[in-house]
Amino acid sequence: MTLGTVSTNKAFGGTQGVYTHPSTETGTEMTFSVFVPDHAPGEKLPVLWYLSGLTCTHANVTEKGEFRAACAEHRVIFVAPDTSPRGEGVPDDADGAYDFGLGAGFYVNATEEPFAKNYRMQAYIESELPDLIAAHFPADMARQGITGHSMGGHGALTIALRNPDRFKSVSAFSPIVSPLNCPWGEKALTGYIGADRNTWRQYDACAMIEDGASVPDILVDQGTGDNFLEGQLKPELLQAICDAKGQKLTLRMQEGYDHSYYFISTFLADHVAWHAARM
Amino acid sequence: MTLGTVSTNKAFGGTQGVYTHPSTETGTEMTFSVFVPDHAPGEKLPVLWYLSGLTCTHANVTEKGEFRAACAEHRVIFVAPDTSPRGEGVPDDADGAYDFGLGAGFYVNATEEPFAKNYRMQAYIESELPDLIAAHFPADMARQGITGHSMGGHGALTIALRNPDRFKSVSAFSPIVSPLNCPWGEKALTGYIGADRNTWRQYDACAMIEDGASVPDILVDQGTGDNFLEGQLKPELLQAICDAKGQKLTLRMQEGYDHSYYFISTFLADHVAWHAARM
Repeated sequence: MTLGTVSTNKAFGGTQGVYTHPSTETGTEMTFSVFVPDHAPGEKLPVLWYLSGLTCTHANVTEKGEFRAACAEHRVIFVAPDTSPRGEGVPDDADGAYDFGLGAGFYVNATEEPFAKNYRMQAYIESELPDLIAAHFPADMARQGITGHSMGGHGALTIALRNPDRFKSVSAFSPIVSPLNCPWGEKALTGYIGADRNTWRQYDACAMIEDGASVPDILVDQGTGDNFLEGQLKPELLQAICDAKGQKLTLRMQEGYDHSYYFISTFLADHVAWHAARM
Repeated sequence: MTLGTVSTNKAFGGTQGVYTHPSTETGTEMTFSVFVPDHAPGEKLPVLWYLSGLTCTHANVTEKGEFRAACAEHRVIFVAPDTSPRGEGVPDDADGAYDFGLGAGFYVNATEEPFAKNYRMQAYIESELPDLIAAHFPADMARQGITGHSMGGHGALTIALRNPDRFKSVSAFSPIVSPLNCPWGEKALTGYIGADRNTWRQYDACAMIEDGASVPDILVDQGTGDNFLEGQLKPELLQAICDAKGQKLTLRMQEGYDHSYYFISTFLADHVAWHAARM
């Protein structure tokens, strides 16, 4: 497993790096960022995964997330992957829309053509990238947590629910809680997985909980001033199914906050502390 | 004085805004950002000015500076202006270089043609923009501090030394301490002010201190891994003249940090607290 270094910068006593590698899952070169706090030689630190939303790369949260102070304080490694395969030959949305194709991998393994070959973000996040992190960074893989924003909140919730033994903790910012019940989800899952909505349930946090999946607890922050709240995000669906199934959920409606990194950066340090207490 | 609102976002309990206005000093539309923490109706808060470096706009520190948590905690308004006039008809470097013209106003009032008409960043920062801030934001103009990075560190130091009654506090990140003694300064001052180096002394922090200017104290953070340290920044010149003249200076050489916002964001909260204690 070869790893290329794009950049490293000292920050908050640790190292913020950006790296690339050829991915066997996506068949492309993939880029991701890792913040490693200052630590003793040989020491291993817990790992918090952050999955980004539509249109993002690793760079958005790396530059605007304001997580490094908290990660340095709590001694947590922070990993930010890309949101899709990229590069020549990778198929995109037919109209170049922002909500499908490049920048919109939706954390699934596509089965539909022409996407099945490259769009394997589920396998990439669940299997390939963890092996790379374990091999190249001082990571204690027995202590992992996962969070994300919007499409990445969907990714964090579904990947945690699918892998309850791997993640000690899960949280999300303004997540897509039910792709079955919103236009972003319907477009993405139709395109990547096909028209049979029964196959979508494995990629829908609400449906997974309804079908019996569970985790110890879930933290969600959602801004009340978010333009996508009513049409796409619908946290009330997650609240209802968690109530019905006895899944512990802390849903914090944050007055006046929108869908931007100004919202995420306000609360990301809180999430780091929340994960650190559980990892 | 009309003010246009480009965007406002709730962040850390306050409001991060970006605004535009027609500037009489530069003859152009100017853009700047302001963070206003949560505050009581009618309450006025101290103001910290942040002057950015070469190539930057208001956006770099606004997105990457990680100052809002500290400004919310210490209840400080944070103002980030642009680094030059911009727009059609504004003359630029003849070769389009990054270190002169657009994005490189150097916080002087140009006297050389064709720059004299628009490149009046000293007057803009010292007179026009403060009036606008006082008129439109809950700012206590009797409590102001100023900081900046690189070219903006030069701006912060020289503007504070020229206006000791206006600013209660001054600090800088990797500042250009002596334009008389570095290539960036020589190019900029020759172009904006002319070949007579005696006229440059009003825009050189070290020369100003040598000529008798003073402030209560100065805080400077400088990374030891900064590529521009030896060729352009030369903090030892500032240390030497401060020692010789009895000017109080805290120069912190930060091991391994570079010239980027990863460095600035690591220490900007420290600077906010330092200013808050003095404003």
